[in-house]
Amino acid sequence: MLRALRSRLPHERFVYLGDTARLPYGTKSAETIVRYALQAAAALVGRDVKALAVACNTASAVALPAMTERFSDLPVIGVVEPGADAAVAATRRGCIAVIGTEATVRGGAYQRAITARRPGARIRAAACQLFVALAEEGWTQGPIARAAAERYLRPLLQARGALPPADTLVLGCTHFPMLRAVIREVAGPLVTIVDSAATTAAAVQGLLRERGLLARAARARAGGRPALRLLATDGAARFAAVGARFLGQPIEPHEVEIIDL
Amino acid sequence: MLRALRSRLPHERFVYLGDTARLPYGTKSAETIVRYALQAAAALVGRDVKALAVACNTASAVALPAMTERFSDLPVIGVVEPGADAAVAATRRGCIAVIGTEATVRGGAYQRAITARRPGARIRAAACQLFVALAEEGWTQGPIARAAAERYLRPLLQARGALPPADTLVLGCTHFPMLRAVIREVAGPLVTIVDSAATTAAAVQGLLRERGLLARAARARAGGRPALRLLATDGAARFAAVGARFLGQPIEPHEVEIIDL
Repeated sequence: MLRALRSRLPHERFVYLGDTARLPYGTKSAETIVRYALQAAAALVGRDVKALAVACNTASAVALPAMTERFSDLPVIGVVEPGADAAVAATRRGCIAVIGTEATVRGGAYQRAITARRPGARIRAAACQLFVALAEEGWTQGPIARAAAERYLRPLLQARGALPPADTLVLGCTHFPMLRAVIREVAGPLVTIVDSAATTAAAVQGLLRERGLLARAARARAGGRPALRLLATDGAARFAAVGARFLGQPIEPHEVEIIDL
Repeated sequence: MLRALRSRLPHERFVYLGDTARLPYGTKSAETIVRYALQAAAALVGRDVKALAVACNTASAVALPAMTERFSDLPVIGVVEPGADAAVAATRRGCIAVIGTEATVRGGAYQRAITARRPGARIRAAACQLFVALAEEGWTQGPIARAAAERYLRPLLQARGALPPADTLVLGCTHFPMLRAVIREVAGPLVTIVDSAATTAAAVQGLLRERGLLARAARARAGGRPALRLLATDGAARFAAVGARFLGQPIEPHEVEIIDL
């Protein structure tokens, strides 16, 4: 997600916060997710950001209304609506499968967002909690990731009674693109795989432009503030190791600032 | 752990707290584990317990000194020392493997406790973080659990250079006994598998007896307070579902009291 945003918006500065002390959010109750997401958002808003991108599907799916209400003077962009846009653009027959965390699937936000865009879409969803652990462990390829993908995805994607097989699969968790290769293997070539990173980055860009907030190259270069500031609530070493895999570039533990929420 | 305690101490009443809002502890830094463990312990002490059993290897391995110091008027029993007792009693050649969470392995508490009891023991340790997710997901048998066990345990248990193969394997995380069957398959019949639940329950009993705190059957029956009180920091439904697998008996969500730490 951060990777997509930086690639799309190279002149912007980013402050990224990982709530590493309390992750994963995906197994928590809605009340707790809302509380934690508001605390995380407040920490970012307190650092003078001009827009808030909620780069976590669980927080987006469960806590976006609360965040939008609390921080109503800022653009607040979640990943679910852009993900639903991408899914509806990709689907041929309107048969869409969504995978996410337990909380994302239970809350039904993707199901609502897709149905709002394409009434009559036939949606099925499954929680794939182990994918989160596999991505964090770095076991994103090989027989274990493959077997987990088989177990989660085969029953989800296939035809069931009157329901035809899914033609589109939404990766509704920011960890899941790390497993894209095995997901692709199991889903086969006929299923379009969508994640919300690129569409969300485009949505952030659109909203910044609309509100006249887009950085111009010259302004961004001035000032000397870093283009990327990394905050975490715990464990700089682990955040650096796991984050580097996600970001696709090395992170040193000393670059990570630990904050308390 | 709770199961072993209740079985060993049928006349005692138990208050069990699962910090479900913030689990897992095993991937957090030592500072955060200490902070969270002290908060959890304070919540239990505030509910008038007569002894504190730390039924989490990570909290025991990382935060026991802090808990013992803070709550010095109570017996505080962790699982690492009893686990080390069990390992040293079980090993034939002093070649002991320990598996646990990242934080447990990194902290080295098992390594120190075993060496203190058997100087010269040859100890190797590995973090098996995915086992936690597999246990929580209920995927404790079958090809995925088996493949994960192969990947973690084969290199750990085998001979390496001058180090002979391990003859004893310590399950240094309360989730791991859920995967005992596949761990046994991979470890083979020559490796003794020990977990700390039974030895910890015996240690709790010994300490209560020593301090004259053991409940007598007659007293325990009086009073009408429940024999088991379940507290969690989040998600009664999920706690009931996962907890029932661990406890080996059904738990209804309404039996779980949600508290804030």
